[in-house]
Amino acid sequence: MRSMSLEEATELAESILFSQGFSRKQTKALTQTVIAGQRDECHSHGLYRLLNCVSTLAAGKVVADAEPVVHDQAPSIVRVDAKGGFSQLAFKAGLPHLVAKANAQGIAALSINHCVHFSALWIEIEAITAHGLVGLACTPSHAWVAPAGGTKPLLGTNPLAFGWPRTGEQYPYIFDFATSEVARGDIELARRENRALPIGWGIDSSGEPSQNPTAVLEGAMLTFGGYKGSALSTMIELISGPLIGDFMSTESLAYDGCSGASPYHGELILAMDPKHFLGADVDTHMARAEKLFDSIIGQGARLPSQRRYKARERSLREGIKIPEILYQELVKLL
Amino acid sequence: MRSMSLEEATELAESILFSQGFSRKQTKALTQTVIAGQRDECHSHGLYRLLNCVSTLAAGKVVADAEPVVHDQAPSIVRVDAKGGFSQLAFKAGLPHLVAKANAQGIAALSINHCVHFSALWIEIEAITAHGLVGLACTPSHAWVAPAGGTKPLLGTNPLAFGWPRTGEQYPYIFDFATSEVARGDIELARRENRALPIGWGIDSSGEPSQNPTAVLEGAMLTFGGYKGSALSTMIELISGPLIGDFMSTESLAYDGCSGASPYHGELILAMDPKHFLGADVDTHMARAEKLFDSIIGQGARLPSQRRYKARERSLREGIKIPEILYQELVKLL
Repeated sequence: MRSMSLEEATELAESILFSQGFSRKQTKALTQTVIAGQRDECHSHGLYRLLNCVSTLAAGKVVADAEPVVHDQAPSIVRVDAKGGFSQLAFKAGLPHLVAKANAQGIAALSINHCVHFSALWIEIEAITAHGLVGLACTPSHAWVAPAGGTKPLLGTNPLAFGWPRTGEQYPYIFDFATSEVARGDIELARRENRALPIGWGIDSSGEPSQNPTAVLEGAMLTFGGYKGSALSTMIELISGPLIGDFMSTESLAYDGCSGASPYHGELILAMDPKHFLGADVDTHMARAEKLFDSIIGQGARLPSQRRYKARERSLREGIKIPEILYQELVKLL
Repeated sequence: MRSMSLEEATELAESILFSQGFSRKQTKALTQTVIAGQRDECHSHGLYRLLNCVSTLAAGKVVADAEPVVHDQAPSIVRVDAKGGFSQLAFKAGLPHLVAKANAQGIAALSINHCVHFSALWIEIEAITAHGLVGLACTPSHAWVAPAGGTKPLLGTNPLAFGWPRTGEQYPYIFDFATSEVARGDIELARRENRALPIGWGIDSSGEPSQNPTAVLEGAMLTFGGYKGSALSTMIELISGPLIGDFMSTESLAYDGCSGASPYHGELILAMDPKHFLGADVDTHMARAEKLFDSIIGQGARLPSQRRYKARERSLREGIKIPEILYQELVKLL
């Protein structure tokens, strides 16, 4: 393993992205996401992702110097056209407007269009909770998942993320999950390792339940939670697709044309301001929410993101480690 | 079975509620919900619910003549204090404001406080889609469900409902599901019929998985979809509890004090106006959404609510049927 401080990792990521042709602004926004993922030990969203950023650019599927354009869409809606760049810079451009609108109106929406997307949504949600706001975000992805009762891929792995700013705690309550039963990467890993899948992960191309990873990758993945997860995933297609005038997962996959690039589509993010919902009683009620978290932890259950926050503290203290082979691959991109 | 026209059923429901002491306004709002449930053959939310309305009143757990009070909470938030009445009249009072705010701002929230709640959420969501808006609604309930990895009841069965107004179709896309694996009524039914539960419905009071309905009713139910459903249910506790200054499911259950009345808590409803998100392109993009529905149906899967809409057409044509024994019970309440 190769050890690095977070500063060294940041410098490495910036140098790679900039030397590959990304603009300074795009480089900075991308690097922040990749370093946050690495710091929290979400390895598939960490430095490893730089390989994918570079291959997506090589495939001509992302605009390296895109300048996002902000539209004041409605009193409670801000829209950012990412102009074909990665989502991060567009989110950064939209965030101050989303926060200002939520602060002014009580609830507001940020829609991002025409972005290339690989980010875990918790990064954006955490930026929203840092302003004392409640956040909800979702995106489509690529059409790999069959609807409940169906036989063909149609829905994306469609992640949903939620955040709640906690009173008197350093870290917010955040969850961020795919609405597919598992990530596509888990099935690809099982194929590489020649392992049978658990029942419920996917179906083969004739629509029959299958434990064969190759058959499932050629067939369809399934949603988590049966018809309920399928309904939720359908909602995400709708509100982060047609509602914001952007691709659904089938369209995003077709646009990709088997290049294996990150998906190209939109994203919907909502922010709610507890001060407006609660007025003078905001502190009382936000403190009440802590009882719920205490009761979850008190009975031996975990809060989502707890593992991630522990990893973060370790990384801030000790720096990060990546496999030597990954480091060598990355250095070649300088 | 006793056959009735919808008009006769409406008259029966109104007569019962009014003679039991509900105000004319409360009676009318409650009756509309009960008749809609019966019409769509959601029998547990149909005329049968009148028994529960009456027993909740007898237990002193609902205000029979409550007059909801509307607060203009923020430019994009309307709040309605139900003043201890059933939720329906409060929703009716808030709906025009929610619609007006969504039409003006792009996105808006309606929070309902201090209501007694038994309604399926699809009824409210359908009223929102009828205005061409996208709707999302949730409520806590009673603390019967353990968080994933936990052993004790803490979360409610916390329903989540979503609606999308369809282009060129009579009925909207609507789902409305409990975040528990099943409804509590399903477990009570299994107990009455002395049937073992499937694995995954619940745990006993020591936290062990159990197929014994009595043990699960004394222990805890489980959420659908493991830790993802549990996270979603936690979100619902937060955004329709503390965020709107109202009870969480544990507090609602404690307030009930074993009276078996309908839960007393709040509700959060969001409405989004596609016209604001999409501007001049609204028709194009709303039409694109239809492709998703076509693809779901085209591969042999069903849309949620399809069964309900079929039942509705049958009821509108042929009237409704209820068991004679239920009819006799209802008539006694006149």
